[in-house]
Amino acid sequence: MKVGIVGASGYVGQELLRILLSHPKAEVTKITSRQLAGKKIAELYGSFAGRTELRFSEKIEDKDLVELDFVFLALPHGVASHWVTEEVLRQVKVIDIGADFRIKDKATYEAWYQTEHGSEKLLKEAVYGLTEWNREAIKGAKLLSNPGCYPTASGIAAIPLLKEGLIQSETIILDAKSGVSGAGRGVSQGVHYAEVNENFKAYGIATHRHTPEIEQTLSESCGESITLSFTPHLLPMNRGILVTMYANLKAGVSKKQVDQAFQTAYADQPFVRIMPEGALPETKWVKGSNFCDLAWRVDERTNRVIVISCIDNLIKGAAGQAIQNMNLMAGWPEELGLLSVGQFPG
Amino acid sequence: MKVGIVGASGYVGQELLRILLSHPKAEVTKITSRQLAGKKIAELYGSFAGRTELRFSEKIEDKDLVELDFVFLALPHGVASHWVTEEVLRQVKVIDIGADFRIKDKATYEAWYQTEHGSEKLLKEAVYGLTEWNREAIKGAKLLSNPGCYPTASGIAAIPLLKEGLIQSETIILDAKSGVSGAGRGVSQGVHYAEVNENFKAYGIATHRHTPEIEQTLSESCGESITLSFTPHLLPMNRGILVTMYANLKAGVSKKQVDQAFQTAYADQPFVRIMPEGALPETKWVKGSNFCDLAWRVDERTNRVIVISCIDNLIKGAAGQAIQNMNLMAGWPEELGLLSVGQFPG
Amino acid sequence: MKVGIVGASGYVGQELLRILLSHPKAEVTKITSRQLAGKKIAELYGSFAGRTELRFSEKIEDKDLVELDFVFLALPHGVASHWVTEEVLRQVKVIDIGADFRIKDKATYEAWYQTEHGSEKLLKEAVYGLTEWNREAIKGAKLLSNPGCYPTASGIAAIPLLKEGLIQSETIILDAKSGVSGAGRGVSQGVHYAEVNENFKAYGIATHRHTPEIEQTLSESCGESITLSFTPHLLPMNRGILVTMYANLKAGVSKKQVDQAFQTAYADQPFVRIMPEGALPETKWVKGSNFCDLAWRVDERTNRVIVISCIDNLIKGAAGQAIQNMNLMAGWPEELGLLSVGQFPG
Amino acid sequence: MKVGIVGASGYVGQELLRILLSHPKAEVTKITSRQLAGKKIAELYGSFAGRTELRFSEKIEDKDLVELDFVFLALPHGVASHWVTEEVLRQVKVIDIGADFRIKDKATYEAWYQTEHGSEKLLKEAVYGLTEWNREAIKGAKLLSNPGCYPTASGIAAIPLLKEGLIQSETIILDAKSGVSGAGRGVSQGVHYAEVNENFKAYGIATHRHTPEIEQTLSESCGESITLSFTPHLLPMNRGILVTMYANLKAGVSKKQVDQAFQTAYADQPFVRIMPEGALPETKWVKGSNFCDLAWRVDERTNRVIVISCIDNLIKGAAGQAIQNMNLMAGWPEELGLLSVGQFPG
Repeated sequence: MKVGIVGASGYVGQELLRILLSHPKAEVTKITSRQLAGKKIAELYGSFAGRTELRFSEKIEDKDLVELDFVFLALPHGVASHWVTEEVLRQVKVIDIGADFRIKDKATYEAWYQTEHGSEKLLKEAVYGLTEWNREAIKGAKLLSNPGCYPTASGIAAIPLLKEGLIQSETIILDAKSGVSGAGRGVSQGVHYAEVNENFKAYGIATHRHTPEIEQTLSESCGESITLSFTPHLLPMNRGILVTMYANLKAGVSKKQVDQAFQTAYADQPFVRIMPEGALPETKWVKGSNFCDLAWRVDERTNRVIVISCIDNLIKGAAGQAIQNMNLMAGWPEELGLLSVGQFPG
Repeated sequence: MKVGIVGASGYVGQELLRILLSHPKAEVTKITSRQLAGKKIAELYGSFAGRTELRFSEKIEDKDLVELDFVFLALPHGVASHWVTEEVLRQVKVIDIGADFRIKDKATYEAWYQTEHGSEKLLKEAVYGLTEWNREAIKGAKLLSNPGCYPTASGIAAIPLLKEGLIQSETIILDAKSGVSGAGRGVSQGVHYAEVNENFKAYGIATHRHTPEIEQTLSESCGESITLSFTPHLLPMNRGILVTMYANLKAGVSKKQVDQAFQTAYADQPFVRIMPEGALPETKWVKGSNFCDLAWRVDERTNRVIVISCIDNLIKGAAGQAIQNMNLMAGWPEELGLLSVGQFPG
Repeated sequence: MKVGIVGASGYVGQELLRILLSHPKAEVTKITSRQLAGKKIAELYGSFAGRTELRFSEKIEDKDLVELDFVFLALPHGVASHWVTEEVLRQVKVIDIGADFRIKDKATYEAWYQTEHGSEKLLKEAVYGLTEWNREAIKGAKLLSNPGCYPTASGIAAIPLLKEGLIQSETIILDAKSGVSGAGRGVSQGVHYAEVNENFKAYGIATHRHTPEIEQTLSESCGESITLSFTPHLLPMNRGILVTMYANLKAGVSKKQVDQAFQTAYADQPFVRIMPEGALPETKWVKGSNFCDLAWRVDERTNRVIVISCIDNLIKGAAGQAIQNMNLMAGWPEELGLLSVGQFPG
Repeated sequence: MKVGIVGASGYVGQELLRILLSHPKAEVTKITSRQLAGKKIAELYGSFAGRTELRFSEKIEDKDLVELDFVFLALPHGVASHWVTEEVLRQVKVIDIGADFRIKDKATYEAWYQTEHGSEKLLKEAVYGLTEWNREAIKGAKLLSNPGCYPTASGIAAIPLLKEGLIQSETIILDAKSGVSGAGRGVSQGVHYAEVNENFKAYGIATHRHTPEIEQTLSESCGESITLSFTPHLLPMNRGILVTMYANLKAGVSKKQVDQAFQTAYADQPFVRIMPEGALPETKWVKGSNFCDLAWRVDERTNRVIVISCIDNLIKGAAGQAIQNMNLMAGWPEELGLLSVGQFPG
């Protein structure tokens, strides 16, 4: 099967290519970048030297669409919603890694992203790709909207508790921490090495664009309208997201019920790993893999449950989950090409 | 004035010595370490080469007490409470950097620290040294109990809101992140470079020993008995603590009242810096200094206040605050020897 | 084919296992660790959770030897030379990742490693596994001695110039820099995070044990007895070695001859990548892969050639090259299981 | 005494200000930045909040010159040589931190820096400020040219051996490694956190602009014309330079003579620390201080001396040495304001 990547010059684009180079059934035959057309990707990312001769095209042409089975979009928000059309979707399946099809409500999208959406109709057709919770719909998707990195880690942490009605939904707090690669490869004072190294900070308090996406996902999981606190922080490291979630248990809910909710949700899911008794997730153990590691504690003193959820922001939080979804959309086993163990030390 | 440091071989001990080398009125004349007696501190910490010839003694002798005005204790918990006696306190003022005199209730101390306390009487006499909130008592202290690093950052964030009765005290959550130096210089798998670098994790969820200390401090500030959630995390960096605090506002409380509470509390405090409008604290700006940087956001969607508080864990979180307290105990200006600007990049 | 790993609890052992989990023809069925017998490797390295249930055995039993085709030894020096016997080699092929069979001269080995060698006879039989320069002998090896990390990067840099007689051999200087994982997982003050982070140092000047190994390799390549300067340094990062080599060109040698020497040596080698004109190797592009990246400059002002050589110390410098050698010993293509692209950012 | 800093928005400018805030005799009253005129420096560097209200002016006006005693220039090369005039020097002493007055030969300067020099006359008058080797001239300087960071560490390592005629000057190799702050605060792909972190590379092999400056300094020290190899590398850390120098000893030179040369040169110098027997310099021990740490090994096998020299690139390599020179030019003790111990962990 043939795959194209639009906007392949960024961290997520090259990560898609890297993972797909080991995929047994899909082959990347086209990568695009407006600025870098004609250059080999190995000139930008030396890791590819000797492994691929692929060069950036300026764009996907109509004739390419005929040959391709899948197109991944790694574009700035506001661009993908104009790139995808019904005409395109008649020829190729599209997986959008960006934000354009994540928020189902057009007005909410436009308010948080400050840009006009290209197609309300496609917005409705797009299938949200939090794989663990939307598998059946994903299998039939033509246009797949891949979740944000924070919403992935947050959704996996919160949904089992909401679905089983174990927590007071108005008490949910998500304190999230991400490595720098989440900000992309673009340069700015904020990603200068000497400004990030040996530093830690919060940003976008109460205003981060992943907030409505998380609220939408959690609301759908339990049928209640959820408003929550989401606070992202920047970690002095390359990769990894850890979300610390807090919520008050409903009256009478036991630790056993909490344990049961997570076991029921994830015992048979290939990419969620529940930590053994006494252990806590660490980002280093998911780095380089598509796993989400999960643990929780019930604190009887405060009647709260605290959940820790870890992912590699570029894999389960972006390129890996996109391929997991591609596998489902193609009718292949979900794990195909995604089972390599993350290297340590990473 | 002459100063001794008991247990000077660790990160806090050497930091005390470093800062005091530039102090205009205090001179360190004695440092001890049981294992390293006879060695020069410059052999352990090359930064001191050419600046001090001080060598570790095995211990403080009775004759030393006569000469010393202050003794700082940087000892493992359970040791200091036996080291300090009324006899000692007749000769010298003691500032304990460790945990032994922080928890006022002996049973609570013994339950959380799993060791017997040496003296209930001295426990009552010890003055808790969160300088910004206990200045007058500190001035007259003979035995000063220096706060923990997390309790310092947490107390400064929470007290103004509790004191003014603006938040629902049962909703307080403290999500805290610390650099590795907080764990001390001792070796273990957990502080191996390749295990910490490029990693982030939570630890001690709902069980960390700073929890009762924070609860005691906050409870005293408002006269209510407070139970809260405190979750520490380990950052891949040397120094710095950032605490993200969440609390629900009481009904009808306005952003203006929140602003006012912090302004009233800290506008005239030399070591608390309220960030300018729109800015958020970052650990790099307090690294190397005794400052605590502070900002907050009122989120009307959730009716929560989110407070960010940053300190250098070895300075305001340990050695710096101890010297701030020494200054007060000696009748000197609080800022003496503590005003150097932290270096950047740190 | 079945593979065992003796001493699998260290960084190299787990890296062997990680890479072999994706190998199409070899399966690890046995891992040993004296201290950790009975534990699952996933308890030590959370990255393996969900991917392997392998547990450490105390040791390889005689009955295991019958079933195994290859045994990798990742043991402290002085141990492997006693573990391997002719009896063992009759049943299984052995690849020693440690130092015991690298130095051909027993007296030299014993002088530098300060331990008695177990078998002069096997020392002679062992084949040195710098794959690019010993491929034919490796194919027939029963006992393979895998090169050290520094000698691998150094050998690849220097041999083409020596073999073609282009440099004055007495002027060779190797200034080498390595990430911390090269020191292994054992704990010590020297690998404490806060001691390594934001620090750089040289160590073992003129006394490092890889010196005689490098000299032996280079001497063999040109038939001269070579004495050189080798200076290792410790980088504040997890993985990667970069060697900067200096040598004076012989009179009349041109840049073209230098270029030709490297092209001849490596144009057809699957794991050596010559950088494109104008580019220089960086450790990040080899991290996570078995590649050695190479570039050189001829400085006419000083009549010197400067060569830069980069590897991932745990892969091409240890586990990866060991598997490359295993592939040859088994009669498989050299690249089998070794072609995954290193992740970036790493 | 009043001090101005032209181009104070960069890392060196703010470092000058930071150190001078603790200087007992000099006060910074003026800082300039064309782009940032009107802004407080504390807005750019939060570390200054609460410690200085200084704002950037667009430039130094004529009336400022009357009031100022010293002006430090931290400007891009090619700018300072036009800024300084004889008229200016009649009113104020100037210390140029940049490169414009370092290379005595105008043609050499223009060839390496690819810009026209503003004043050959002032170039001749400028005094080169490698303090340890030019103290008497510095005392009388009106225009001081502060050395580059690499030339400082290199000069301190090499001069004693050249001056005493102990090494073969054509064999000198300087393999240098620097933290990222040496590249300044400007943004580019090359200083993006995720590109630098976990990476190590060489750059500017045989072409770095500090090469002619080092050669000039070394040549002057011994009266020979020296051509050497200088290879800089980029370390994944904020601050610190370590230079590893190699040179062949002249026939018959003993280790004792080498030791003697360094002892004679530096035993009485306040900012050069010779490491104790058996120890080697590490950048962490000089970080945050004006010290240069030094050690050497004589390798009898190769008849080479290997010297290790460490500095903080922003202090002894820039702002600190500039203040050391200011102290001398003002007739004060050289150490004034420069003796604070670097913090650890840094």
